[in-house]
This record gives sequence, structure tokens and C-alpha cells, in this order.
Amino acid sequence: MLKATSRRLREAGFTGPAVLVLEEQARRNIRAMAERATAAGVRFRPHFKTHQSAAVGAWFADEGITAITVSSLEMAEYFARHGWNDITLAFLLNPLLWPRLEDLALDLAGRGGRLGITLDSLPVARQVAERADLPLDVWIKIDTGYGRTGLRWDDTPNLRTVHDTLADTAGLRGLLTHSGHAYAAVDDAGRRAIWRETLERLEAVRHGLGSELEISVGDTPCCRTVERLDGPDEIRPGNFIFFDLMQWSRGVCRTDELAAAIVCPVVGLYPQEGRIVLQGGAVHLSREGLPVADGPPVFGMVGRLDPAPEVLREMAVTSLSQEHGIIQLTAAEFERLAGDLGIGDLLLVWPVHSCLSCNLAPGYWTMGGDFLPHVTAS
Amino acid sequence: MLKATSRRLREAGFTGPAVLVLEEQARRNIRAMAERATAAGVRFRPHFKTHQSAAVGAWFADEGITAITVSSLEMAEYFARHGWNDITLAFLLNPLLWPRLEDLALDLAGRGGRLGITLDSLPVARQVAERADLPLDVWIKIDTGYGRTGLRWDDTPNLRTVHDTLADTAGLRGLLTHSGHAYAAVDDAGRRAIWRETLERLEAVRHGLGSELEISVGDTPCCRTVERLDGPDEIRPGNFIFFDLMQWSRGVCRTDELAAAIVCPVVGLYPQEGRIVLQGGAVHLSREGLPVADGPPVFGMVGRLDPAPEVLREMAVTSLSQEHGIIQLTAAEFERLAGDLGIGDLLLVWPVHSCLSCNLAPGYWTMGGDFLPHVTAS
Repeated sequence: MLKATSRRLREAGFTGPAVLVLEEQARRNIRAMAERATAAGVRFRPHFKTHQSAAVGAWFADEGITAITVSSLEMAEYFARHGWNDITLAFLLNPLLWPRLEDLALDLAGRGGRLGITLDSLPVARQVAERADLPLDVWIKIDTGYGRTGLRWDDTPNLRTVHDTLADTAGLRGLLTHSGHAYAAVDDAGRRAIWRETLERLEAVRHGLGSELEISVGDTPCCRTVERLDGPDEIRPGNFIFFDLMQWSRGVCRTDELAAAIVCPVVGLYPQEGRIVLQGGAVHLSREGLPVADGPPVFGMVGRLDPAPEVLREMAVTSLSQEHGIIQLTAAEFERLAGDLGIGDLLLVWPVHSCLSCNLAPGYWTMGGDFLPHVTAS
Repeated sequence: MLKATSRRLREAGFTGPAVLVLEEQARRNIRAMAERATAAGVRFRPHFKTHQSAAVGAWFADEGITAITVSSLEMAEYFARHGWNDITLAFLLNPLLWPRLEDLALDLAGRGGRLGITLDSLPVARQVAERADLPLDVWIKIDTGYGRTGLRWDDTPNLRTVHDTLADTAGLRGLLTHSGHAYAAVDDAGRRAIWRETLERLEAVRHGLGSELEISVGDTPCCRTVERLDGPDEIRPGNFIFFDLMQWSRGVCRTDELAAAIVCPVVGLYPQEGRIVLQGGAVHLSREGLPVADGPPVFGMVGRLDPAPEVLREMAVTSLSQEHGIIQLTAAEFERLAGDLGIGDLLLVWPVHSCLSCNLAPGYWTMGGDFLPHVTAS
């Protein structure tokens, strides 16, 4: 069976390592999320940091998406060059970048669009207030429980001070959060609880500030699994275009929604030791580990495409070095699962965290042989 | 004190994130290793996978180096385009790449150079034997104890079979190993034991095959710390040009030998929670963790450059997401160590594994403002 996948990948021109994107599946994932947003009447501003590619961005445009999220100024400038003009930079503002931010804000506004920025401190709020004439959408970052960045939702004095500092800033747009702790939830009940709590806390902040602020939230686990997306004004999920083993293992997505995999050539076979060695290391898969119940974390799992996409839990990459990935089996498992493999066969490895694996490659290959480059600008 | 480093980095034009290379230090590291090799009369064939840059490669050429090691065909082709013509691809041969390998072998030979390849199996040995007229240096990969790739040093029947298959191949050059387990050794005594054992086992293989094979070894920990490099015909260390916290923490290098760091802007400051947030996440530092005695692994440590390079153990990146790095302190530590920091200050973060962090960036910046691009072709 692995032989059949290898043959298909070789026929498609792969020699590996490379990132394979399943275009139809990715387009279905985009459409499904867009439809969920439309049904709830919320703005869909997908995060483009997962794919970082103008060519993949065009698949979103095909679904009518016009507003996007990015995580670095370089990424914002890249997508602006590729025709996007409604861009939120959902990463705390770095004041050293003001000259470039000003240029980009004026450029986007001149094209009828808008640059959104994010802040969570008084010094940066003051810098923004001093530029009240600059066409910016300003989002105050709120920490609703993740504990990474943002003003704490219950820190009323500082919320008030930052908000009031921006009182005369025309572009003050709303409250923005990322509930990153939703990635750790292991079932829908846990994700729904985080979704509800996030919205309640943002509503409390909005109520306390007594103003007409918008609410922007965004994480794939919640946006994919809550029953309805009603509540916020805007959602910003990103990972859902490709998903990955992290999402799959926590029940966020189905196997047939996985849309990115790493094609890795088999370069070493050691039947007696039960070991398969791939060209597929930390520089291809990333070092992000997936916790598993009964052992150390794994760095990828082998997959099949036919007759339907599949994850082979038994065939996990259990050890990584810079360029090598190791699948460690027993000698008996090796014979059963990999006995027909040869050096030069290609395995398809589902990544643990697709955002990191995709960032490591120069772009994507489709089964049709198209190469879709991306910027590396995180 | 952190403020002084930030000021220097800002004056040098950094806005972050970016990889800073300390050129003088890197050049000293190259010279020191070249001198050790010369003193022992062994060929120095440095591994270029750490830096992957033609501009940095030129610093090796300045020291008279003409032979190099790479870990992918893309990297071999890149350095061939930049004038290097004695290149060993120290990664098990992927048969799907034969057409490109043949082209490169002929190209290098036509320029008076040579392509080296590596194998550890009978099927690939047969493929090489069928190409006996191709100008290749052929290295048999030996597993001397690391347990990743290679024919086991004590697997006499298979060693004999592979060797005999190559008997009529003019380019059969020698035995090659990588003692990756030397990275886990925590002191010089441990590294010296691995170095001795590696050489003894390779000598045993050479003796058993009864031929005039060369011996090639290569890992930074042993090559930097054994008393003398006598024994092998060739050494292939790579990491030593930049070193990193992994090497530093195990006593392989001194602080003033660290030559690559990540410049990260401070984007969030939370004194009450003792938290500093950097733009410096898994896409900048990599997810490689450094084990520390009394807690979870860390992903980088803040450094200073003046008056002498320094590692601030207390200021460690203890948590990472895709673009964010978090330094978690107590509120009291925050006041003492970071009380004068502002948003937009630049911190210098020493990476845990420089090979992985460098691979994530498009290239290097020097304090003099030069940008040295690298290929990303692992």
C-alpha cells in the first residue's frame, strides 16, 4: 500500500523533500470556513501566515475573500504587492518599523483599502495617537486567558487609559484577541467553553469602555468546531486551510481535511533494527512534537492517499535530526508495514504543525505538478 | 546593560528579527579548526550545511580551504555554481536524483574537481557499480555507534558484500561516519572516548576489508575538544563556525566563540506578570530545546556583546509559539533585569542550535550592515 502512494508521487514528478498541497481539499477547507462565517454574518479575515503564498491566496479570492490577516510587516508588504489591500497585521506593533508602516498604510488607503495594527500598551498607543491623521485601523489586543500578549480583560484601569489615549484617533476599530489556549483543548466541549468565555470577556471589556468597538477573534480549533460562529464581528483563523496532526489528534478536523504533507524519500532501510530513515528532518518537518499517550512526542506520521486519505499511526517519525527523520519499528512491524519498501521510495508524512513545516519550504507542489512559491517573511 | 546592546543593534540598523553573525569571531573559529587540522596532517572538509552561504563560504576560502561537505544535492549545486568543485554530499544517496547527480559529477570533474557520494546498501552500491565510468568519489557510510544510518561497523558480511560490489569502481574512496552521539556527551572525557572508539571501529572495518580505504569523520564536539586530530584522513565538522548554546552548555566552546545570534524586538512588556514577549518564535529560533537542570527546556538565552560576549542564563526564552518568544521571570527579576527595557528595544538571543536557526532566515547581517544571503536547500 505504501508502494502505491510512492508510485503515485513519483509519477507526479516528486523526488522529495517537498511540501505537497492537496489543492481540492484546501479549496474545500476555505469554502467550508467561508460558508460558516457567512451563515453567522461575521467578517472572515483569514490568517495568511499558514501558507504565506500569493498563489494560495488566490484560492481565497476565488471564494470572495477580500480581507486578510498577517503576522509580520514583510508578509503585509508581500500581499499588498500581490493586490490585497485590506490587511490586518495581527502582531504587536514594533515601533522601529514606523517608517515602513506609514508607507504601507498610505499605499493601502490610496487603493481604497486599510492597514490594521495591534497594540496593548500606553507607549505605543501614544505613538499612534500622535499619528492620528494616518489611515490606520487600530485594534487593542486583549488577553482573555491565553496569557501571552494583550491587556488583561479585567485590567480596567489600563484598558481605560489606553482606550482614552486613542479617543481622538479616527481609526480606533476594536478589540482583538487570540485564544491560543484553544489549541490545548482536547474536545469540542473544551473548545466551546473557551469560545464562550472569550466572547463574554470581550463583551465585558466593550461594555466597560462604553464604546462601539468591534470584536475580532481567531483560532482554527474554535472556529472549526463551535456550533455557530455568531458573536464576534470578525474571525481570523489560519491553520484550517491545511490542518495537521495536532488538529487531527484533538478532533478538530477529519483525515480527509488534511491538505498539506511532506514528501520524503526513503534513504536508509535497516530491517533487522526495524528502522526506516527518511530525508525529512527538522529542516523539513520542524521540531514541533505531537504528544502521544504512551511515549515521547512524534514529529510526523506517514500517510496514504488512496483510496482515501489516511494516517498510519503505527508509522510515526519518532526521532529527528537536522535532515534525517527516523521511523523506529520492531523488526516484525518493519516486515509487515515496510517490507516492500526500497531506497528511493517516497513516503508522504503528515506534519504535526503545518504552519511551521510550510514555513520551512520555499513553496508548495500540487499533484498536478504546479509549483506555488511563498514568501518566507515571518 | 541590555539597553546598551539594544542601542548598539539599533545603531547598526537592525529592526529585527534577523540573524546577526559576528564575522571576526566566525573567522577566528574557522582559522582555529583549520590550524588544528593542519597540525594533525588531516584534510579539512568543513560541512557547509550550518551556514549554507556562498558569502560565508568565502571566509573558508580565505583560509585556504578547497574541499567542502554538504547535506543535499541542492546545496551541492549551489556551491558548485559559486566556484567550489571538491564537494562531498554526506547524505545517503537518493536514487531518484541520479540524472542531476550525473550532471553535477561531470561538471565538477570537468573543472578538475570531484563529487563525493555516500551509500550504505547493496542496491545503491549496485547502481554505483553500473556507473563505474562516472567520475565519483564513493564513500561507504559506517555506523560506529550512533545508530542512525550506515552499515554497522561489526556487520562483516554486509560490509564485505557492499565493498566487493564496488571493487571495480575506480572512485571507491573510503569509509565515512558521523558520530552524532558525541553531541550528547557532556564533557571532554566523554567526547574523547567516542572519538577513540569511532577511530578504532573504522580501523577495524578497514583492516577487515583489507584495502587502502580512507577514513572520514566529522562532528564539531569531538573535532573541537580532542587533544589532537591525528587518526582519520579527513574531518568534516560544521557547527563550529557559529557554535550555539547546545555546544556552549556542554563545554565544547567558550562564550567568546559564539558567532551567531538572533536579534529580536521586544513587542510586549508585562511587569506585573514578569513576562517579556519578543518577536522571536519557532520560525526564528526553531523549536529545538536545550535541556536545563531544573525545569522544561529553553529555546534561547539573551546575550550581551559588551564589554565581552555574555550569556544571561536568567533571561531564557522559556516558551515559544510560531512568531512569539516568551521570557518568563518573576516580577522581582523583571524589575532587576528588564526594568529599563521598552517596547522596540532589541534583544540579542543566542540560539540553541545554530544550524536550525540559520536555516530559518534568508541570510545573515553583520554589525557592519552587510547582508550575506544563503540558499535554503536542505
